Amino acid sequence: MCELLGMSANVPTDICFSFTGLIQRGGKTGPHRDGWGITFYEGKGFRTFKDPKPGYQSAIAQLVQNYPIKSKAVVSHIRQANRGHVNLENTHPFTRELWGRFWTFAHNGQLTGFEDLDTENHRPVGQTDSEQAFCWLLKKLDDVYPLPPANMKDVYRYIASCCDQLKEMGVFNMLLTDGEYVMSYCTNHLYWITRQAPFGKATLIDEDVEVNFQEETSPEDIVTVIATQPLTANEAWTRMKPGEYNVFHCGELIESNAALLKDVPFAEAKPGC
Amino acid sequence: MCELLGMSANVPTDICFSFTGLIQRGGKTGPHRDGWGITFYEGKGFRTFKDPKPGYQSAIAQLVQNYPIKSKAVVSHIRQANRGHVNLENTHPFTRELWGRFWTFAHNGQLTGFEDLDTENHRPVGQTDSEQAFCWLLKKLDDVYPLPPANMKDVYRYIASCCDQLKEMGVFNMLLTDGEYVMSYCTNHLYWITRQAPFGKATLIDEDVEVNFQEETSPEDIVTVIATQPLTANEAWTRMKPGEYNVFHCGELIESNAALLKDVPFAEAKPGC
Repeated sequence: MCELLGMSANVPTDICFSFTGLIQRGGKTGPHRDGWGITFYEGKGFRTFKDPKPGYQSAIAQLVQNYPIKSKAVVSHIRQANRGHVNLENTHPFTRELWGRFWTFAHNGQLTGFEDLDTENHRPVGQTDSEQAFCWLLKKLDDVYPLPPANMKDVYRYIASCCDQLKEMGVFNMLLTDGEYVMSYCTNHLYWITRQAPFGKATLIDEDVEVNFQEETSPEDIVTVIATQPLTANEAWTRMKPGEYNVFHCGELIESNAALLKDVPFAEAKPGC
Repeated sequence: MCELLGMSANVPTDICFSFTGLIQRGGKTGPHRDGWGITFYEGKGFRTFKDPKPGYQSAIAQLVQNYPIKSKAVVSHIRQANRGHVNLENTHPFTRELWGRFWTFAHNGQLTGFEDLDTENHRPVGQTDSEQAFCWLLKKLDDVYPLPPANMKDVYRYIASCCDQLKEMGVFNMLLTDGEYVMSYCTNHLYWITRQAPFGKATLIDEDVEVNFQEETSPEDIVTVIATQPLTANEAWTRMKPGEYNVFHCGELIESNAALLKDVPFAEAKPGC
């Protein structure tokens, strides 16, 4: 399976520490050697770095680890291919415009029958189930909200109901952002943690790196990180339940269905995405 | 004014040499310090590197100069801002999907009355006349070709007729590509050169760099470079006429209205874009 990494923060924050942990799994401590990508929002604009090569060998990934780009919303992905060839058009995240905003999407899992998802004029460019699901989500949003909506909480609730449909087709772990909000949806593997004062130290699982967040932050900072597997060994990550969605804004959880869901056993993911 | 750089080639070719020339004008040998960007196509996928910082100081631009990404279609831009703030959402090139292809656009010039260009649901994210013009072009294409068209020459001819309308609003020098074709449209400043066997040496105007294309290429290579100003001192670049458009495919000129146009004096560009 692939791995996801997302961030929501109340001040522009760099994600070098977490990305350094994730990218080791791109062929070194993990089997995700079929490309990687990361999208940073800065205001309404974004920039994406991506490479169909293994992350741990990539000169571009090296730059992203060492060059702190500060952002309030980030989505990243490392790929172990299953549906679609290993090439740039199949490398996550995917970004498209809707309502004068750029939406960025990354997916972990596999969907059966994805070819039947009707995307109308939101046409996929590559061959993955993931991009087709993203285009279908945009089409559903376009149908229900032909004009830019005012109430974004309603929009994210509607997206969650669409994700419930996608979950019926297989494994659908997802990160989605419009640069303002960051949404996570879980079928089986997604964890999150919110860091705020008092900040402590954290140690990466995948690389011999420790960070003292107290030295890197100011007391008002709130930063949430979402990942397929916990990235640090000495912090308490919250595991999401099957069918759970969370919406973060400026680092804080503002919308979730977690309280409504029962604790049920997790189905194991099949490899690939 | 801004500066444009484009490339069309019959084999994946790196553009490090030309980009090294252009990027010096991003605050060093030229005044274009308000951001830069470059989009490389690889198959149907693309990747864009951009930065709202001056190009000649940018760590990301440094990577692009030194890390050869091979592509058959490239569009690049350095910006001297006039319309819209200096930030990421206003940094060219702009990329959007239409007909299951990614279209990439960069503009040099200024358009008066651009706010009246109706873009319907192809909404701009930033504030530039350039992005609004691009969204308007996509809307016009969507209107005329609601389904993916088969004859791309016809499509590019239609785009040229839309560019004629934009030219009436001010200065409109443009590069546009769908990853397969590269189109240039000129109001006043655009030059191009096709390099093919027998290859010679070329010397950059803006930096003390010489390249021997014979060592870098194979005899079948055909590479066209398009730029606002010639980038090399010892080669013969062709200046485009006002209202001229060219469409390149695999490095070769396949469509142009140049023969139909009279030689007329060039209007000087106002600064900014």
